[in-house]
Amino acid sequence: MSSGALNLQHLLSKFSDHWSQRTIGTLNDYEIKLAKLLGEFVWHSHPETDEMFLVLSGTLNIQLRDRDVILNPGEVFVVPKGVEHCPKADEEVGVMLLEPKGVVNTGESVRSNLTIAPKPME
Amino acid sequence: MSSGALNLQHLLSKFSDHWSQRTIGTLNDYEIKLAKLLGEFVWHSHPETDEMFLVLSGTLNIQLRDRDVILNPGEVFVVPKGVEHCPKADEEVGVMLLEPKGVVNTGESVRSNLTIAPKPME
Repeated sequence: MSSGALNLQHLLSKFSDHWSQRTIGTLNDYEIKLAKLLGEFVWHSHPETDEMFLVLSGTLNIQLRDRDVILNPGEVFVVPKGVEHCPKADEEVGVMLLEPKGVVNTGESVRSNLTIAPKPME
Repeated sequence: MSSGALNLQHLLSKFSDHWSQRTIGTLNDYEIKLAKLLGEFVWHSHPETDEMFLVLSGTLNIQLRDRDVILNPGEVFVVPKGVEHCPKADEEVGVMLLEPKGVVNTGESVRSNLTIAPKPME
């Protein structure tokens, strides 16, 4: 790794809490974020934007209303805007997320104790 | 892998030519692309947009005017908009790229025999 490069596994190892996104970089007005997931999140949607998941470790089930999308490491899924989804991780999952800045993690219409703004990576 | 999931290594295995991007998905008005790189590209920049590289296999040197950024698998680098760069791969590299639709791979001001529009994945 050299100056400016982001080693995803190394950055994942620097935090341990679940469902709390860390911003590691930006791509124009998008944020590149990491998160660790464990258990089931809340059903929500993002009416204004698609959301990209890239699984780095573990197996993630992105539950949709009509099917489950199972992602293993090295697999990507884009949840289309407006589509209800609920991520579920039976064991800990590490993911990279890409979406525009300002997206609310629990969806724009739901607030819960899981609603947490992304933090900068320390 | 389940319906809608994109397995990056599997998709990389489906083509073999170099410096010819394949579009595997979209994220709003961005394209998610794969490419295989071998040798040295051309110096260029994208005046309107950042460009994200995620290395999937091999070691990529993203040459900048003031330094080299060395990326191994699992490492990300975002070339800022307007910054001249020249990717170089001494051995074959597999990458995932993310940038807005319509970006010209050799930069907006250069046309060469390496100027190739992204193709859809077959």
